[in-house]
Amino acid sequence: MSKVIEHIAVIGAGSWGTALAMVLADNGHQVRLWTRNDNQKQEINQQHTNEKYLPNIDLPHSIVAYTSLKDAIKEIQTVIIAVPTKAIRSIIQDIAEFQENPLTFVHVSKGIEPDTLMRISEMIEEEAPERILNEVVVLSGPSHAEEVSLRHPTTVTVSSKNMEVAEKVQDLFMNQHFRVYTNPDLIGVEIGGALKNIIALAAGISDGLGFGDNAKAALITRGVAEISRLGTKMGANPLTFSGLTGIGDLIVTCTSVHSRNWRAGNMLGKGQKLEEVLENMGMVVEGVRTTKAAYQLSKKYNCTMPITEVLYNVLFNGVDARTGVERLMARLKTNEMEELVDIFHEQMEQQ
Amino acid sequence: MSKVIEHIAVIGAGSWGTALAMVLADNGHQVRLWTRNDNQKQEINQQHTNEKYLPNIDLPHSIVAYTSLKDAIKEIQTVIIAVPTKAIRSIIQDIAEFQENPLTFVHVSKGIEPDTLMRISEMIEEEAPERILNEVVVLSGPSHAEEVSLRHPTTVTVSSKNMEVAEKVQDLFMNQHFRVYTNPDLIGVEIGGALKNIIALAAGISDGLGFGDNAKAALITRGVAEISRLGTKMGANPLTFSGLTGIGDLIVTCTSVHSRNWRAGNMLGKGQKLEEVLENMGMVVEGVRTTKAAYQLSKKYNCTMPITEVLYNVLFNGVDARTGVERLMARLKTNEMEELVDIFHEQMEQQ
Repeated sequence: MSKVIEHIAVIGAGSWGTALAMVLADNGHQVRLWTRNDNQKQEINQQHTNEKYLPNIDLPHSIVAYTSLKDAIKEIQTVIIAVPTKAIRSIIQDIAEFQENPLTFVHVSKGIEPDTLMRISEMIEEEAPERILNEVVVLSGPSHAEEVSLRHPTTVTVSSKNMEVAEKVQDLFMNQHFRVYTNPDLIGVEIGGALKNIIALAAGISDGLGFGDNAKAALITRGVAEISRLGTKMGANPLTFSGLTGIGDLIVTCTSVHSRNWRAGNMLGKGQKLEEVLENMGMVVEGVRTTKAAYQLSKKYNCTMPITEVLYNVLFNGVDARTGVERLMARLKTNEMEELVDIFHEQMEQQ
Repeated sequence: MSKVIEHIAVIGAGSWGTALAMVLADNGHQVRLWTRNDNQKQEINQQHTNEKYLPNIDLPHSIVAYTSLKDAIKEIQTVIIAVPTKAIRSIIQDIAEFQENPLTFVHVSKGIEPDTLMRISEMIEEEAPERILNEVVVLSGPSHAEEVSLRHPTTVTVSSKNMEVAEKVQDLFMNQHFRVYTNPDLIGVEIGGALKNIIALAAGISDGLGFGDNAKAALITRGVAEISRLGTKMGANPLTFSGLTGIGDLIVTCTSVHSRNWRAGNMLGKGQKLEEVLENMGMVVEGVRTTKAAYQLSKKYNCTMPITEVLYNVLFNGVDARTGVERLMARLKTNEMEELVDIFHEQMEQQ
């Protein structure tokens, strides 16, 4: 199969943006990796490393770093948006200043905007003027950047309102180590990726409290039910939550020390305050903002979300983490099947 | 709530039998813990420890060990069967020699018998003469014995053809740390517990090969689909596989170093031969026998089970572990939703 070689811009040189730039470079593409930070640009272009975000990894030389957004996106058709949810709107506004031609925006972030309750594709659509918007594609799945940069086997899913464009993005990224699947359920793919960070925070808290793997497995099981319940009310296909961007991503995020949401939860469970944790991380913890958004969504859609509610109270209302998790463990109905059937019926009604 | 105090026999003093004996003793019951091994009996009764199976744990003094099966079950109404699947038939035959009155058999093992393809409750029903058989109950879920013995929060499910009896067993075990739920889907609870060991072996192999958490998450995601597919054809409720005895148990078994099936897979992935691995473990690895049974079930029910098939070929047909897992990773359809929908339709047809 012959591949079309493209110039592609990756906006954001954190660990995930850089790892995806490597996949694209491995596939023969010319990658422009944009960063705000001039030292980071020099390091990438001269030493071909990005030590802060991907320690001990050599980057392909076909990845060239830019600090000028205008130069990075010049004559480009596909742009990968790899910035935190909080920075999505402003980066699209910045791109709109220089860009004249339609772009395919591939976003690889996982979050929901508090207050507006928008998914990331909706935020991009709202910010991008019509003249520069070809289509928005999401790429999501169980994929630690560190492992992708080591070319360990990884599977992800792409989705879009326009599946032809999603398939083009699938072709750009697909290779022997990095397998890309399509799923037309854009809402489900975006919701699964965003909400799993809440469960990862809760799982980290449980581990930090010393509760062990049995408790964590129960939390994750409840987490899948909770995500699926809300997602279906928002218009997702419940089947998506059984797939890579559902339980797949949830499992990897809740059980791996690579996961920064799990790590943040772990510090909370050990008794640190939220402000300390966020300071110590030095990276964005998407789950914190997403907890606020999901709590608001649970009210809007009148959806029971016990884990989200407990976590919201721990993060924002000063509830003690141990009390919160213990309350959660005691909350399941004593007849497990009754609860599963409740959720199933709710989901069937939405279809 | 006042509790009825019972004399209860636990047959099998491995880690799981001993941990469950501790839960029952914590709830005020008089527990007779049967072992074949006289030294182990002396240790339990004199030092109140079981170092080989639960190191550094003090056992409640109300647990009394027996080597005489006749004495252990004398005037007992409830017996917990905590022996490997392979030993189930002979232990029931032994009990039948002495026993005159009806017993509730609570089995806590996870397996399927090769060739007969029977679940454990079916094996017990077949072996127990009518005069001694009140009812069979299964207790299953995400529950490492080590953590239960440390009184870490744990959730499990009980099921039976007769849910009134299952609820009595729920009462015997339920306490603040050990939460017991009911689920009337006996087939689903038994199948989920048995088949997750196959996926744990595969996950261990993947880890042993150095493939990382992304690959493992993909494997577990595929594993849930595969278990659910077969289970539904065997008459289980597909919802059970979304619960504690489905994804819950699968997650804990695939991601914890406590899991002996994962550990066995890990050694296989590192290049050891099956015989060496089984010798090194010194404990029963249920997943090996279950893989044979599940492979036979996949043929009987004409059910696609890629992980089971690969593992069967690795374990019994000399296929190289790396080749097997790589083949598996490449096998997903490129449209994830198509595959999920296929499985969903198959399941709906069975209902």
